[in-house]
Amino acid sequence: MASNPKDSRPKARLAKGFRDVGPDEIRGLRRMLAKIQGVYESYGFEPFEQPFIEYTDALGKFLPDQDRPNAGVFSFQDDDDQWLSLRYDLTAPLARYVAENQHKLPIPYRSYHQGWVFRNEKPGPGRFRQFMQFDADTVGSASPAADAEVCMMAADTMEALGIERGDYVIRVNNRKILDGVMETIGISGKENASKKLAVFRAMDKYDKFGIDGVKQLLGKGREDESGDYAEGADLSFEQTQVVLSFFETTTLMARGPFIPFPDRPRSDFETIQESRDSPLVLAIDNLRTLRDWTKIFSNSPIGLEGIAELEAIVRIIEAAGYGSKRIRIEGSVVRGLEYYTGPVFECELLMETKDADGRPVRFGSVGGGGRYDDLVARFTGQQVPATGFSLGVSRLYSALKLVGRAEESATLAPVVVLVMDKERQGDYWRMVQELRKNDIRAEMYMGTAGMKAQMKYADRRGSPLVIIQGGDEMAKGEVQIKDLRLGSELAADIQSREDYAGQRLAQFSVPESDLVKAVQAALARAR
Amino acid sequence: MASNPKDSRPKARLAKGFRDVGPDEIRGLRRMLAKIQGVYESYGFEPFEQPFIEYTDALGKFLPDQDRPNAGVFSFQDDDDQWLSLRYDLTAPLARYVAENQHKLPIPYRSYHQGWVFRNEKPGPGRFRQFMQFDADTVGSASPAADAEVCMMAADTMEALGIERGDYVIRVNNRKILDGVMETIGISGKENASKKLAVFRAMDKYDKFGIDGVKQLLGKGREDESGDYAEGADLSFEQTQVVLSFFETTTLMARGPFIPFPDRPRSDFETIQESRDSPLVLAIDNLRTLRDWTKIFSNSPIGLEGIAELEAIVRIIEAAGYGSKRIRIEGSVVRGLEYYTGPVFECELLMETKDADGRPVRFGSVGGGGRYDDLVARFTGQQVPATGFSLGVSRLYSALKLVGRAEESATLAPVVVLVMDKERQGDYWRMVQELRKNDIRAEMYMGTAGMKAQMKYADRRGSPLVIIQGGDEMAKGEVQIKDLRLGSELAADIQSREDYAGQRLAQFSVPESDLVKAVQAALARAR
Repeated sequence: MASNPKDSRPKARLAKGFRDVGPDEIRGLRRMLAKIQGVYESYGFEPFEQPFIEYTDALGKFLPDQDRPNAGVFSFQDDDDQWLSLRYDLTAPLARYVAENQHKLPIPYRSYHQGWVFRNEKPGPGRFRQFMQFDADTVGSASPAADAEVCMMAADTMEALGIERGDYVIRVNNRKILDGVMETIGISGKENASKKLAVFRAMDKYDKFGIDGVKQLLGKGREDESGDYAEGADLSFEQTQVVLSFFETTTLMARGPFIPFPDRPRSDFETIQESRDSPLVLAIDNLRTLRDWTKIFSNSPIGLEGIAELEAIVRIIEAAGYGSKRIRIEGSVVRGLEYYTGPVFECELLMETKDADGRPVRFGSVGGGGRYDDLVARFTGQQVPATGFSLGVSRLYSALKLVGRAEESATLAPVVVLVMDKERQGDYWRMVQELRKNDIRAEMYMGTAGMKAQMKYADRRGSPLVIIQGGDEMAKGEVQIKDLRLGSELAADIQSREDYAGQRLAQFSVPESDLVKAVQAALARAR
Repeated sequence: MASNPKDSRPKARLAKGFRDVGPDEIRGLRRMLAKIQGVYESYGFEPFEQPFIEYTDALGKFLPDQDRPNAGVFSFQDDDDQWLSLRYDLTAPLARYVAENQHKLPIPYRSYHQGWVFRNEKPGPGRFRQFMQFDADTVGSASPAADAEVCMMAADTMEALGIERGDYVIRVNNRKILDGVMETIGISGKENASKKLAVFRAMDKYDKFGIDGVKQLLGKGREDESGDYAEGADLSFEQTQVVLSFFETTTLMARGPFIPFPDRPRSDFETIQESRDSPLVLAIDNLRTLRDWTKIFSNSPIGLEGIAELEAIVRIIEAAGYGSKRIRIEGSVVRGLEYYTGPVFECELLMETKDADGRPVRFGSVGGGGRYDDLVARFTGQQVPATGFSLGVSRLYSALKLVGRAEESATLAPVVVLVMDKERQGDYWRMVQELRKNDIRAEMYMGTAGMKAQMKYADRRGSPLVIIQGGDEMAKGEVQIKDLRLGSELAADIQSREDYAGQRLAQFSVPESDLVKAVQAALARAR
């Protein structure tokens, strides 16, 4: 193959919007996923997995912000001409499974599912076309207890991962509340579907653009710094006022610390939002929020229905001891996916981080979910009530790194036994076996290069120690142990160069029979 | 959506050749994968993951038995018209990664990778279009030690999984040995590529069709029971004799118990193959096999080169204490993938199982691999020697189930707290929380049905216990505990119906404050 002309060779490159993942992140993710599994298992949810590929019509089209038809999903035709797609979430395939197997399942069917999903979207920084979701769902229960449960489980999960109480909040709203707003301003009904969607999207942009941005997006539209113009919902002045009064009075006061962009004037509502522990935030009471909403929606039956559902959830949450600091009713939660029919949830992290321009912002959403009572009925015609919560695994993992809880480095790199004499690889191998038997990660150098390259290899691997047995050591029945970490510390510290005691620890010989004991002692020093 | 006419509804169905996976298998797989990870980590291999989607040209076409162009792989076009494919193995993407990043990597680069791969093939029983592979690779080393290492690691992995020594064997061959056979019968060279492939495939079918089948496939061809005819390699009588003499003398005696199909006459070679512990099998000596081959290949430089490479591997294996019972040189190992350039490996399980017609056969291959020195050069033009081993996760898991090592049932189903009074869900929830705090899987019934349906639910879930607190129990400050396993045992055994002591254990009340203690005691009885 080496004789091929250069031009005919393929270029080695990752496909656009995808990424390779290395050992630190994999180990950190494994520990994180095991902790989430632990919580979900303790709740009695059962693991479940599905294929990555489904019939396109079985998945349906529920992605948010799809301007182009067929966008968002990777699709291809099977030999028998049926269209297949890579799943874009885990909820649509679950609905397919339940519709196909509901008579075999215990109802309610409570399962959890970690899995990769795919979006055929334009990739961006930190935005990939393959990512992992971790879902928990209760299918076959209309009870508000099922909604309350997934929210409480999400809260417990955050704490199991080491995110402190007060650093996260599960925000809860109801699509029916949002429909109530629409009903109040007279844009309910199918003929207003696109206008409604525009209003939802405007409200959803509060985290990104603040209240003034929402106001612009409810009206004519908004021009961003780069000059790009986003079309607005084109509400009248009066309509905008109603939406803002609902949104502001019920949302801003309830939110965590909003850190405004420096160049944007603060609204009255923000000046009282100094910190998440301000008296106003702590005084939030979910039932009071619902009482306030009852006044606003007195003329909206759908809004009142939404309030009643939320009240049932709140009563269970309160009885179980989860106050509004952990799970909070908020009017701004929208959730983009179109299949939600009732309560919607969002798990938001309140820790501060920096945006792309280095400005401080809240970390933001790491997952969410809601009730999707019509998704099984797509197949069967019979409504099967369902609710669920989905965590974005990569976002959550970034958050754990931010708070120093990612636990990436718990695995030590292996001890490397150098190959000083190719004829004696069997001997070196037996040393490696001996170390492994004593639970020490160890490897024999597997390349064909000389001593210097072997030391460089051990260095690149981050090995704590190398083991050397050349002819001299063998004649004496000894092995030499070289502590690479200590060695590089000593080299960095010129003062200590004469420190013979230190150097004795950095490189020393022991009888071969003491190899394991000496390595264990040196590793204990290195930790 | 329920108002849609029935015809416009999609049918809820799995895509052809895919499957859903339930809790027992997921838990069993998790435990199995963790054990494999443990072995690979102890060897100093590092975890690595890649996306499921790659550019089609970066993957290349190396699948075996591809009669149609573009078959075998799921492909689709990106927005920018570049072709993307779902990976069909983990080796081709690894070569892409190394070619892209080789200057950043420690060389040799030793990594392991568990991941899903996809084949656009005709599905069959137990043959799916998505399956998991678990690979370990050493890239950047031409040393036979690297080949020896992955074989020894595969052997250690089998034992870590509980497969006993003697129930598995790692079979090792060399593509150059096979080329030596071709050279000896005069069909080397590019112009004979398709004939060579036909010979390899014939040899590869030994497990399936026995020696007579191989003979037919080396000659004109073979008709199977259903009347389908497979074209042969069309060798002359003399050529066939050479291939068979190599194949029979070096392979059959070395193999485990060959259980011939009842309706096929036994060859002389098989009559001495009564059991894997027969004196002939135990006397196999890898170095003697290589000495025998040296005589056959005296006129084939490529054959002799292959023997020298295998000898270097055998010397390391012997020094490390892995005899030919665990790792065995055998002439019949071919491996279908076209990118192998030197040593090839196959991990075979020797336990007996049944074929589709209920006849006893060896379990067979659960993985394999080999050296692929040209795969990185496809991109860079510079050869990067590499070797690796790939385990088929589903096959291996089936094998563990066969030998009773799958450990599926280690997780107990949750205790179910019934909802006797909807207004008191907060109280029931607190009981559940209390149980979970004490590491007992527990759930509150999440549906809306009555007592009878709740008991049926707990039964379907396989719950060991249900907790009941109706008005009467609450008035007394008690909870009732119902042991479902003991209850159904008693119900099954009519003799014991009068056994009040037994019934007292199957259903009893305790003070609410003793809930955790009483549940722990009942669960201890249930285990």
